[in-house]
Formats: sequence, C-alpha cells, structure tokens
Amino acid sequence: ALLSSYLFINFALGSRYVSKTATKSVSEFEYDAPSMKTAVPGPNDIQLCLSPGLQNVGAVHFFCNYEESRGNYLVDVDGNRMLDVYTQISSIPIGYNHPALMKVMTNPNNVSTFVNRPALGILPPENFPDKLIESLLSIAPSGMRRVQTMACGSCSNENAFKTMFIWYRNKERGYANPSEQEVDTCMINQSPGCPDLSILSFMGAFHGRTLGCLATTHSKAIHKLDIPSFDWPIAPFPKLQYPLEEFVRENAQEEARCLEEVEDLIVKWRQKGKPVAGIVIEPIQAEGGDNHASPDFFSKLRNIARKHGCAFHVDEVQTGGGTTGKFWGHEHWGLDDPADVVSFSKKLLTGGYYHRDELKPDKPYRIFNTWMGDPSKNLFLSEVLNVIRRENLLEVVTRSGKALLQGLYTLQTQYPHILSRARGQGTFCAIDACNDATRDSIMIKARNKGLFMGSCGEKTIRFRPALVFKEYHVHQLLNILNDVLAEHK
Amino acid sequence: ALLSSYLFINFALGSRYVSKTATKSVSEFEYDAPSMKTAVPGPNDIQLCLSPGLQNVGAVHFFCNYEESRGNYLVDVDGNRMLDVYTQISSIPIGYNHPALMKVMTNPNNVSTFVNRPALGILPPENFPDKLIESLLSIAPSGMRRVQTMACGSCSNENAFKTMFIWYRNKERGYANPSEQEVDTCMINQSPGCPDLSILSFMGAFHGRTLGCLATTHSKAIHKLDIPSFDWPIAPFPKLQYPLEEFVRENAQEEARCLEEVEDLIVKWRQKGKPVAGIVIEPIQAEGGDNHASPDFFSKLRNIARKHGCAFHVDEVQTGGGTTGKFWGHEHWGLDDPADVVSFSKKLLTGGYYHRDELKPDKPYRIFNTWMGDPSKNLFLSEVLNVIRRENLLEVVTRSGKALLQGLYTLQTQYPHILSRARGQGTFCAIDACNDATRDSIMIKARNKGLFMGSCGEKTIRFRPALVFKEYHVHQLLNILNDVLAEHK
Repeated sequence: ALLSSYLFINFALGSRYVSKTATKSVSEFEYDAPSMKTAVPGPNDIQLCLSPGLQNVGAVHFFCNYEESRGNYLVDVDGNRMLDVYTQISSIPIGYNHPALMKVMTNPNNVSTFVNRPALGILPPENFPDKLIESLLSIAPSGMRRVQTMACGSCSNENAFKTMFIWYRNKERGYANPSEQEVDTCMINQSPGCPDLSILSFMGAFHGRTLGCLATTHSKAIHKLDIPSFDWPIAPFPKLQYPLEEFVRENAQEEARCLEEVEDLIVKWRQKGKPVAGIVIEPIQAEGGDNHASPDFFSKLRNIARKHGCAFHVDEVQTGGGTTGKFWGHEHWGLDDPADVVSFSKKLLTGGYYHRDELKPDKPYRIFNTWMGDPSKNLFLSEVLNVIRRENLLEVVTRSGKALLQGLYTLQTQYPHILSRARGQGTFCAIDACNDATRDSIMIKARNKGLFMGSCGEKTIRFRPALVFKEYHVHQLLNILNDVLAEHK
Repeated sequence: ALLSSYLFINFALGSRYVSKTATKSVSEFEYDAPSMKTAVPGPNDIQLCLSPGLQNVGAVHFFCNYEESRGNYLVDVDGNRMLDVYTQISSIPIGYNHPALMKVMTNPNNVSTFVNRPALGILPPENFPDKLIESLLSIAPSGMRRVQTMACGSCSNENAFKTMFIWYRNKERGYANPSEQEVDTCMINQSPGCPDLSILSFMGAFHGRTLGCLATTHSKAIHKLDIPSFDWPIAPFPKLQYPLEEFVRENAQEEARCLEEVEDLIVKWRQKGKPVAGIVIEPIQAEGGDNHASPDFFSKLRNIARKHGCAFHVDEVQTGGGTTGKFWGHEHWGLDDPADVVSFSKKLLTGGYYHRDELKPDKPYRIFNTWMGDPSKNLFLSEVLNVIRRENLLEVVTRSGKALLQGLYTLQTQYPHILSRARGQGTFCAIDACNDATRDSIMIKARNKGLFMGSCGEKTIRFRPALVFKEYHVHQLLNILNDVLAEHK
C-alpha cells in the first residue's frame, strides 16, 4: 500500500529521481540521490574511448570516477551520479569507498601486506592463519572447516574441480599410491594418469570461462564458441513458473523431471567410461537468467550425488556474501551437510573454496600455484564481515529485498505487456521484459535517469545492489523504473 | 680471478656469511647480510604450523615476517634473516618493502583504486587507459600494441589460448558469422561449435595448472595426476649440453631433431582432425628444470608456426620482467616479430598477455570475466618500471648474472662430483646437483646459513633473485654455497 502510493505520486508528478515521501536512512558518507548531468555515455566517456590506451572498448559501458563514488552511488567521468544496482557485476559488498575499507588503507600495519605479495602456499605471513580464522573460517558453510584461497572465481572453480577429481580417483584406487603407468601416462595427457572423468553441470549454468570451467558453463554461445571442450554431461535446470508460491505443484513436477534426468546422465556417462566425479550447481543461476529452484530440489540433488558417489559442488561466486539475505545462498535449503565443496569470489573480494575434510588432497603441491590468493584481499574481507555484523546487513538485505520484490510485483501488474516473472531472494532479484530489445531500451532509459542495472539471460533485468542498499534506495529504484515504464511506448 | 680469491679466503676462514672484501653497494633501506638465530624452520614456525587456521601445511617452508624483510633479505618469524634468491617463486621484482612501493600506499590519490575494485571490462576507471600506457604498453614486446590484463598467470595463459582458438576459427570460416549449427552445438560442448583444436606444447613445459593450461604442462606428475586432459600434441624440448658455447654443433643437431618433430606433430594432429591452433613455449623452461634453447631454435620455431598457420605464444610468466638481463626473455632472440601472443604475470604483479592486432577477438565479451585484472597492481607496476629505469636494473642484472654464472662455473669445477651443468641468462641461473637428495640437502644447509634458494626439475637448484640483486649479493651467495659444499660429506 505504501508502495502503490509512491507509484501513484510518481505518476502524478512525472519523472523525478527521488521519492519525497521516502524516509532517509543513508549512511553519513553517502549521497542521497542520483544526479544526472548528461546522457550516459557522456562527452568525456566518448573522448576516453578514443585513447590509444583503451584496448577492448566493445564491452565498456562508461568510465567511472571511483574517487567520487560513495555507497550505492556510482559517479561517471561526466559527473553523472547513478544509483548502482549492478555493483561491478555483483562484486562490491558494502558500497563504494566505505569508511571501514578506507581505514584498512591508512593503517600503517597493513602496508607490508599490500607491498609484498607472498607465495602463500610456501611462505605465508605470520598472521595468515589468524586472518583466515577471523575472515573466511568465521563464515565457513556447515560441515566445512577447510578453505583454500585463490585469485578469482574461475581459478576457484578450476581448483575445486581438480580437488573433486583427485578425491574421486583416490577413492577408486583405494587410497593406494598411483601405479607407474598412471604416473607415466599423466605426463602425456593420457589415461589412466589423466582419467576420463567428468563434471555434471546444468543448462543455463555459468561457472567461469577458463577451459575447465567453460565445459560446465552453458548460458550464452558467445562464451563458448570456438573453444575446445570436454564431453561432460549437461542436465536440464528446472524451468519454474513464478511466483513460486503459486505454482508449487507444477514446479515440483518440473524439478522431478530434471532430477530424473540427472540420474540418467550419471548412469549413462559411467557406462560411457567417463564417470561423473562431481556435480556443480549455482543456488540461483545468475548469468543464465536468474533461474531459481526449490530447497527440495537441491536437497534431493545432494542426495543423488551422495548415492552415486559424486562430489557435490555449490558455486556461490555470485550468490555468496549476503545478497540473498543469508550469507550463503545454500543456507536457504536448511541442510546440515549442504555440499562437499563451496566456491566463492566477487563480494568476498578474494576467490577460493571450502571443502569437507574428506576432500583434502592427499599430498602437497597437488593444488598449488604461485600466489594462492592475495592476503591484502583478506584484510578487506575481515572489515567487510565486521561491517555486515555491526550494521546487521543481512537483515537490511532481507527487508530491502522484500520491498524490492513487492515493488516488482506491483510493476508487472501495472505493465503486464512489458514485465513478467518477477522473482528474487533477498535483494538478488530479477524481472523479465517481453523481449531483449525492450529490456535493453528500459535499461538505457533508466541509466539516463540515474539508475544503473544489469542484464542476464535472454531478456532479464537483474538487480545486484550492495548489502548497504536500504528501503530508501529501493524506492528510488522503483520510482525511476516506474517513470521509464510510464514513458515506454 | 677476483671470485676465486673470495673462494680462497672463504676456504681459509671457514663458514662466514659475508665476504669481508666485497664492495658494498646496497640501497640504504636494505640489510647488509644474512643473520641466523635458529635452524629453519625455527620454534615459532613449528608453533604456527599447529594453528587451526593453517590449512595446507604440507608445502609450507616457513612463516615470514614481511614487515621486517628488506630488499634481498627475507626475515622469518624466528628472526632469521636470509638472502632470498627465490623471491616468492620469482615474483618479487625489486625486493621487499621497496620505498617506491611503500609510497604508492601512502599516496592518498591511490586509496580509491585499492578500495573499489572495478569490473575493468565494462566500467574502467578514468585513469585506466593512461595507466596502461605508462605501465604495460611502455614495455610492449616488438610488434604488439594490445594488452589484456588478467588476475594471474594461469588465467593469462587460458585466455591467451582462447584468443588463439578464436583467431584460428575466424580464419577457417573466412571471418563470416558462425553457422546456426556452431552456435547450437557450442552450448553443449560439441563440435563444430566447440571444435577439436589443439595447442602444441613441449615436454618439460610449465604453463599453469587450470585445466586448459595443465594440458600444456609436462614438468612433474604431481601437477597432472588424476586430472582429465586434452589429446594435444607434445613435442620434445631440446636437451642441450652446457656451457652452450662449448657444444654448439651437438646442440644444433638436438634442436634440429626437435624442430622436425614439431612439424611432424602439426601434420599428424591436422590429419587426426585436431589441428594445432597455437604453439606455446617458454623462452627458458623454468619449473621443468631451467632448460635453455638457442635464439636460432626459437627463430625457426616461430617460422614453423607461421608456415603452418599456427599462432605462436611465448609464455614469459617466469622469464619476463628483466630477470634475464632484458625485459623479456624473447628479446635475446633478436626478432622483430617474435610472437603472436606474449603472456606474463609474477614480477609484473598483474597477469595478462599482449597480442598482435590480428588476434583481437572479433566481438566484445568473447574474452571477458568479472575483474579482468586489478588496477591496484598496475599502480605498483608503474613504480617498479620507474625503479628499473632509474636504477638501470637491467644492467645490474646483466652484471650480477655474469658474476653469478662465473661463480657457478668455478664451483662446479671445484666440486665436479656434486655439481654440473651451470647455466643462465642474466640472474636467471641454475645448476644441477648429482641427485635430488644431494640437491635438497644442499638447499637445507644453505638455508640454515642464511641463503634461501629454489629448486626445479629433478635435481636442479634455480636462482631467481630480485632485480636489485647486486654483485655484493652474488658474493654472499657464492660464499655460503661454497661453505656448504666444502662441508658436504
């Protein structure tokens, strides 16, 4: 009711950037509203695109002035200040230039950590175990006490896959030493040393773009075209109807169909001589179009993995870090033993993965590289976790997420020819446009009014605000979106 | 002659850490010698290894006090100060806590770059093109004006491979749009969308540990065992005799044999339906045992790649950054058009790769990920390049390298039953022990006397000092090594 009065006022007054009736609850360091000076990209953007230093201009949206950006507001080089609900592809946890993170930089005790990047696997800094305990281990998923840091999301998933392959083969050979034949053949990429094992993934999944990850990514052709891949099984991901509460029976049927297919594929690939060592899945398919599945689906899938002796890898690179209202997306499933491996990156600022004790590699140097992460990112992560706790940001996300989803429901009711399938968990929300051209046009018009959103799937708008996104910001977002929709055609 | 007098004095006086006759030329901020308080690992190390925060203790050498480390000297948690000629697996360019790098941290203009890590591919900071021009583009290899930053060495090579595959397929289809069949099949990992292309690599090579890179890595079984791989061709790398000047004819024959095998493999894999899209090689095989080849070999290999329409990728992750006495290892070949792709990481502090214009992907988002590097690393790299220029560090490396190699020759002459095959370019030097047990024992004894070295291959000691490693440090190194050898057996 409150929301529809906003929308009504908005209708009556036309295009405005700030809802006058919204209660302000912005942190002191933040701006209070968007402020637009030019269309985006503006003249300074266009100038910078001509620089010989710019290499791959094709994907650039605009150039940013990160010094001037604050909290939920991203400032561009033309002085435009936008409410940012894309947050660097969902990788800014507590907004721009958060004072707690600025302090990390000005603390002289931290300088050495930035200046001397160690080879963590062989020469860790004295404080590294303690820093892990206060950061990553303090948020370890249920059933997991082990974490391995990595530099980025793709490296995290690649090494998680390797960890599952090593675990699987050690089981197969009864934890005996590898045979001479295995040692010899692995050097030349041949079986049995390099075995024909596979990872089962889902249509619509995104797990990264390096060659191993890419074999489990099936969201868009542009990611995969022309790159050699592995013959690994790909199961259908449930195509649910939204709102989930209204289609419980239909969705349960669809999920049962997909789970059956998973088991068939596991059997089929075993018969093919390419057994499934692990299953990898996102709690919510993000890049693939914000596709949800029920806790029941994930719980059953986890049991299928257990039954067939496959490791179960939950990729939380985009869902992790609080954006769903719980720290990990898989917490919504309510399982004590949700996974064998959980990978992360983005909002956690460092990449890495947790795993159950059983998956610890049997020898050193099997999972290894030069840097094995970056301790300076752990410093920032510790502060991010402090802020999340101190400011109860998971509650903020839950509250803002409810307001956002409710607002999206209202908008799709008012604009049924344009919008449909509003869905979300926490502020991890999305809505579909009637087609990709309309979606893109809405996004550009919204950007010119000071709202910067992301897209995913074929015709989806995805909302990925920072954890400091308050109800006040939700109303700014909805007001702008409503203005754009009111003007549309 | 000067050197042998050091060794003589050293003999006479027994174990000492500093050669009294050496001329000091250490920067003001550095220590002047190693100083050992305990054996390594010491009691504090052993205590830290029991921390529940430490996850993978197997590969840990010791814990470091990076705050107290300076220049060429690494300090551990027991207060032992070692001359470090391994430098975090060759990734510390100008020593520990270099004042120029400390200044980057205290410059308030830089804070925002550390605190707000952008999605560089879509929302670059205003100063990013200029920073690229003053850093990476200022050291671009001959014939290359394009650079793509990445987070680490493996990601750099993975994306370099993808760039070569995309280039190769675009050539094959005459730069036309992909067929509907290609678009459809790529989504499910099948040919023709995911084509059976290959990368030719060399036995003994190391190009990283993610699944694509690992298919071109053939240095040690521990890296590869149990991980699925690709059926890609593997050529022999020349096994040369050292010193190179004394075996010119034999080495030329060996190189000719390997080049012939390369051409055979290219033909064979084309016939197999898995054409070679690219050849990847290190200017000096590092992890594989410091294996050299002549400029003539590389020049002919580059021509073979050109003749067969394969891209030529030079992996400079370990050789790049000045350690061979030129900024890039391939500069020693004297070619105007040395490669199609040159990848880097480690001493450059950011990963990435250069490529010729022709290899630019035809569309945005084909080479892409969330972070695409890290601008805060570019800030440090700019300063490193300033220091290299200001302090003429390439000349320092050349001078120190000559003294080091000459010293190693002298040692292997004096201890022919223990040492052989001294070799090197700049300070990128190595020497073989008679077997791995002796190698390991020498390394541990040297460490306890204050000299920290790395190993590679089966029985090789590799020297990878920072670029600030002066002749004075060379003599410290040789004195300690001589002490260890004199005591050996």
